[in-house]
Amino acid sequence: MSHNSLGHLFRITTFGESHGPALGVVVDGCPPGLELTEAEIQGFLDKRRPGQSRFTTQRQEPDAVKILSGVFADSSGRQVTTGTPIALLIENTDQRSKDYGEIADKYRPGHADYAYDAKYGIRDYRGGGRSSARETAARVAAGAVARKVVAGVTIRGALVQMGPHKIDRARFDWAEVDRNPLFCPDAEAASRWADYLDGVRKSGSSIGAVIEVVAEGVPAGWGAPIYGKLDADLAAAFMSINAVKGVEIGAGFAAAALSGEDNADEMRAGADGKPLFLSNQAGGVLGGISTGQEIVARFAVKPTSSILTPRRTIDRSGQETEIVTKGRHDPCVGIRAVPVGEAMMAIVLADHFLRHRGQVG
Amino acid sequence: MSHNSLGHLFRITTFGESHGPALGVVVDGCPPGLELTEAEIQGFLDKRRPGQSRFTTQRQEPDAVKILSGVFADSSGRQVTTGTPIALLIENTDQRSKDYGEIADKYRPGHADYAYDAKYGIRDYRGGGRSSARETAARVAAGAVARKVVAGVTIRGALVQMGPHKIDRARFDWAEVDRNPLFCPDAEAASRWADYLDGVRKSGSSIGAVIEVVAEGVPAGWGAPIYGKLDADLAAAFMSINAVKGVEIGAGFAAAALSGEDNADEMRAGADGKPLFLSNQAGGVLGGISTGQEIVARFAVKPTSSILTPRRTIDRSGQETEIVTKGRHDPCVGIRAVPVGEAMMAIVLADHFLRHRGQVG
Amino acid sequence: MSHNSLGHLFRITTFGESHGPALGVVVDGCPPGLELTEAEIQGFLDKRRPGQSRFTTQRQEPDAVKILSGVFADSSGRQVTTGTPIALLIENTDQRSKDYGEIADKYRPGHADYAYDAKYGIRDYRGGGRSSARETAARVAAGAVARKVVAGVTIRGALVQMGPHKIDRARFDWAEVDRNPLFCPDAEAASRWADYLDGVRKSGSSIGAVIEVVAEGVPAGWGAPIYGKLDADLAAAFMSINAVKGVEIGAGFAAAALSGEDNADEMRAGADGKPLFLSNQAGGVLGGISTGQEIVARFAVKPTSSILTPRRTIDRSGQETEIVTKGRHDPCVGIRAVPVGEAMMAIVLADHFLRHRGQVG
Amino acid sequence: MSHNSLGHLFRITTFGESHGPALGVVVDGCPPGLELTEAEIQGFLDKRRPGQSRFTTQRQEPDAVKILSGVFADSSGRQVTTGTPIALLIENTDQRSKDYGEIADKYRPGHADYAYDAKYGIRDYRGGGRSSARETAARVAAGAVARKVVAGVTIRGALVQMGPHKIDRARFDWAEVDRNPLFCPDAEAASRWADYLDGVRKSGSSIGAVIEVVAEGVPAGWGAPIYGKLDADLAAAFMSINAVKGVEIGAGFAAAALSGEDNADEMRAGADGKPLFLSNQAGGVLGGISTGQEIVARFAVKPTSSILTPRRTIDRSGQETEIVTKGRHDPCVGIRAVPVGEAMMAIVLADHFLRHRGQVG
Repeated sequence: MSHNSLGHLFRITTFGESHGPALGVVVDGCPPGLELTEAEIQGFLDKRRPGQSRFTTQRQEPDAVKILSGVFADSSGRQVTTGTPIALLIENTDQRSKDYGEIADKYRPGHADYAYDAKYGIRDYRGGGRSSARETAARVAAGAVARKVVAGVTIRGALVQMGPHKIDRARFDWAEVDRNPLFCPDAEAASRWADYLDGVRKSGSSIGAVIEVVAEGVPAGWGAPIYGKLDADLAAAFMSINAVKGVEIGAGFAAAALSGEDNADEMRAGADGKPLFLSNQAGGVLGGISTGQEIVARFAVKPTSSILTPRRTIDRSGQETEIVTKGRHDPCVGIRAVPVGEAMMAIVLADHFLRHRGQVG
Repeated sequence: MSHNSLGHLFRITTFGESHGPALGVVVDGCPPGLELTEAEIQGFLDKRRPGQSRFTTQRQEPDAVKILSGVFADSSGRQVTTGTPIALLIENTDQRSKDYGEIADKYRPGHADYAYDAKYGIRDYRGGGRSSARETAARVAAGAVARKVVAGVTIRGALVQMGPHKIDRARFDWAEVDRNPLFCPDAEAASRWADYLDGVRKSGSSIGAVIEVVAEGVPAGWGAPIYGKLDADLAAAFMSINAVKGVEIGAGFAAAALSGEDNADEMRAGADGKPLFLSNQAGGVLGGISTGQEIVARFAVKPTSSILTPRRTIDRSGQETEIVTKGRHDPCVGIRAVPVGEAMMAIVLADHFLRHRGQVG
Repeated sequence: MSHNSLGHLFRITTFGESHGPALGVVVDGCPPGLELTEAEIQGFLDKRRPGQSRFTTQRQEPDAVKILSGVFADSSGRQVTTGTPIALLIENTDQRSKDYGEIADKYRPGHADYAYDAKYGIRDYRGGGRSSARETAARVAAGAVARKVVAGVTIRGALVQMGPHKIDRARFDWAEVDRNPLFCPDAEAASRWADYLDGVRKSGSSIGAVIEVVAEGVPAGWGAPIYGKLDADLAAAFMSINAVKGVEIGAGFAAAALSGEDNADEMRAGADGKPLFLSNQAGGVLGGISTGQEIVARFAVKPTSSILTPRRTIDRSGQETEIVTKGRHDPCVGIRAVPVGEAMMAIVLADHFLRHRGQVG
Repeated sequence: MSHNSLGHLFRITTFGESHGPALGVVVDGCPPGLELTEAEIQGFLDKRRPGQSRFTTQRQEPDAVKILSGVFADSSGRQVTTGTPIALLIENTDQRSKDYGEIADKYRPGHADYAYDAKYGIRDYRGGGRSSARETAARVAAGAVARKVVAGVTIRGALVQMGPHKIDRARFDWAEVDRNPLFCPDAEAASRWADYLDGVRKSGSSIGAVIEVVAEGVPAGWGAPIYGKLDADLAAAFMSINAVKGVEIGAGFAAAALSGEDNADEMRAGADGKPLFLSNQAGGVLGGISTGQEIVARFAVKPTSSILTPRRTIDRSGQETEIVTKGRHDPCVGIRAVPVGEAMMAIVLADHFLRHRGQVG
């Protein structure tokens, strides 16, 4: 019941603070024989890396990953997993921890500062310490390994809402996601959102977002009743990402307003002997088990609370004060949550694939 | 990593099918010395019990609970927990399993029938077997034990949306919840919804709902980074309830549209030495740790797929066919999900209370 | 981290006190499609059942098992597992709990009485409550299910030492085990031990024993480094049996006195393409992973502390006193530990088989 | 159910191969506010470090530990734990992996080579890879943290048997353990064993040993029935150490030969209100729960299979061959297992202390 681990047969354990020497993750349970190089993992880290556009924090971190264990050259010279734990290390380089006087003593509203102090009586306040979104770099690295385990599954994420602005579903195009720095699948929205976000950034404010993650190629049968449900594990995985306040599968909250007739995903005989579903309100999961349809999940990210507008707060001694959070922050943390969401989907699916194979063969 | 268990230090393991001999739950890790009687547990089961009003299934189940283990008379004669596992048994009595020919072979759209067959190659189709919402009776029984563990916390649930109809927040009144069979906290809405639901029921249709669960009295400090977050565990617990498609904490999905200024819960010095929060967008959880505010969560329940309108589907041999689900069903399963949601909140909080006490003392 | 559960993919959770209404076990993770009847489970329970000979307690318990969930008729009418949790219930009938005045207040030396009170502040003293060896009936029932999961493995146990008396290895014969009530594989020893044990019994004393459990047919590859070692899990499983004070694998403690030359199990090419080991000092496990040889484990059981000779002790208030434990007790609890040891071997192997299949495929 | 993790509330996850870049451990669940420096951890590592005397492998490894996370300066400037995961890294420096041609292809009898290949199809053969006893450096580092958690408990280990030679219990002196390189508590035996071991070493052979680990100061009440027993967890922890083939608690295997009278640890009223036990056959654990007496455990270590005498074996292609294991090896690996055994005792006790505090308060 480790607090910093996720998964069962495929299990990640992360460690590290924002401004400590390093972040990392131990990936345990990865099957043997999968080719794995630092370069591949690095590709995913680069997608999440800060400082990539004017819309993300200007902290300069190479986020260079090192594989410390769990791989070896196979008989054909390829570097492959060996079945032993894969430790991945990312050293922190751009730490700038010189001046944290203000947040050392004052609680930033909307941040975990007060909660950590209330729980532990001490916290590493530099850059948010353990509560910093830098921890998600470790998730992305682990997600790269997880993708190898479920190699037949395509996992993609996109920003489908920024602040109050939603995409036009008719223009949804996965190819567009990689063409704009917002990971937006709607080219028109991407353009408008860029302007909108510039305004937010310049005013020192911030804004929330909704991310959609889709997994294609998951066969029917993964997941398990009742507390090992695929969607329950996805919900926990997404909710564990910094700043996430809501998770939904398929129709999600909109399902509350549907009639039974509209919600039922009717089935026809598919050409391949599998059912052909006529809709996907279920988001690919029924009874906690995959149906063979696309797994569709969304999660809502709140605006970062690090803003230039002064907010009322208290300090560690309980005295009332105000705080302005300067420093390098994302005006919309939801953007960089896209690759993190993909990683969490990959990690949960890898775990469920192995669990299914274990129980059912 | 049991599929049918939830929790760590306070842990439940449920078993049983809708039409088997019995349902039950083993509650492990309950602290010793807590008074516990069948009558108390029964009170919560009666709230969830079918056949209570015309708005729920007419299946007649007494849902009488028996305590099989884990309690003993203390020196003053009270029956108390002993620290050993508490097994609770609920026998099935009104099973009517005579005629299941149709759903034995056909997959009901929106139900778990196909997913179970795809995974296991066999399923107990009587009343949905293990995928039936009858399993939630075991959760409610376990929840009654969990409430004893967090005796200082008040946990209440309410139906805040039925189909497209939301309550008026200005009329929210906890006292009203127990006065109407819909667990609706808005008296006017309750009245209108009753008429609306009569229409749904008579047409053989069904409708979804949103449930809100609030825990008052949770001190700051419960929960843990990063994968032991209180809100992540709540998300999994709610998502594991039958028919749930979305979960949110505090502002939830609405947080996506907020600015950092509006989302920040400002703090003032409270009279009791604790912070006084000026708002609760966070829903009482920051960084996965409770802040001392009310824990506020919501989850969306889809409409039951058991409807009288014929739906297109396939049978076990892959042939195309149609299905009409007769039998006794809830037109709005969200109603009976209210006590289930309360139980899940109690179970997760009991676990986190013990975990916090273990780690921090 | 449930205290009353064992295993991961194949997982048992037991409950029940010696003199409560019932004992039971929930078996979670059993693969679907395995034929399972109450009669088969009963066969194993009967082997462990008290009152079978003059050498075991005269408590009369039918130990009749009921399957409450997890099975269903397959298309050919056989009752098979469905992949959902299998709950097994054994009601207590011969409880005789009328007079427990003495042990309610006094701590029996060598029993768990004081430890339970020190931990929980309360204990069900009737027949030892949760610490009674009656709990092992639930293990044996679960073991019967586990054997189905590893159907190709033969698991057998035998009593190889009673008090100071060891068997003659040259006379070891599995067929003999079922011919005497002591589960002794050496016919001559069985005869002598019966006389010896009569003497122990008549004097109101008790004696310890060593049990050997062997699993034949386990392929190479089950188990996992470093904390998922097959032998580490076996050690925990055997040590969790009441009264067990030592566990060893293969040469065990004798390995301490061996030279590297004598301890090395040399290998030759086997006819089946597998290695042919020339000895089995390892007991079939190297590096925590099975080698394909027989898994050989032994565990030592202390004498029951329920004896007629008065022993000095204290009572709940800390006052010094003496105690004589009357009642129906086994003069050598090691005898009935034989089927329990077999069950634990089966449970651990079933779990590791599924885990191996999950991780490696 | 991570294969490379141990513990629940206090949980370690280790990684690393013998000749990879580094070894390490993530310690999760450590309570906040405990002073922790690299120097303190280093002290324990130095005790286990190779090359300390002629009786251990001459591999030269500084085993210098780095703390990567989980500590921070408190208000008085002391470096303390923060409650977040503590990652400890030990880089490998003296790897000499140039020539592994022979063991790359041949299976060393008594080693895990064949088992790893059978399981994973690939293995890092350099120095034994993951199966190397170098992994125990990570355990010793984690054990240093665990000792902080149970600061009131004194944990000490000693070599009580080398090959066939046992210590004289009458001469047992903890102070002597630190005075000889064999961790032997009997000065006379230490002197004789040194000569004996010189002979073993010079002949290129090896020999087994028995280690005793004692914990003093554990209060009554730690541990939990039935599968969370303190002694069951100790058994698994010790059995998980490389080369261990047997574990016992208190009287251990000798208990099999005891009568109930001799085995019963009689109790008198202690001066401090606690019971005064007149003996400790139980080794401080009854019913899986500590009694307040010393926890006494022993484990048997087999001789290393790396010897100069040729042994018959097969190679990866199944061909019969012979092998001589050259290189730098311990003639008695049991010596360096002493600090490892202490570490495992500390880790298990830390976990049970937190679990007990969680469940019972």
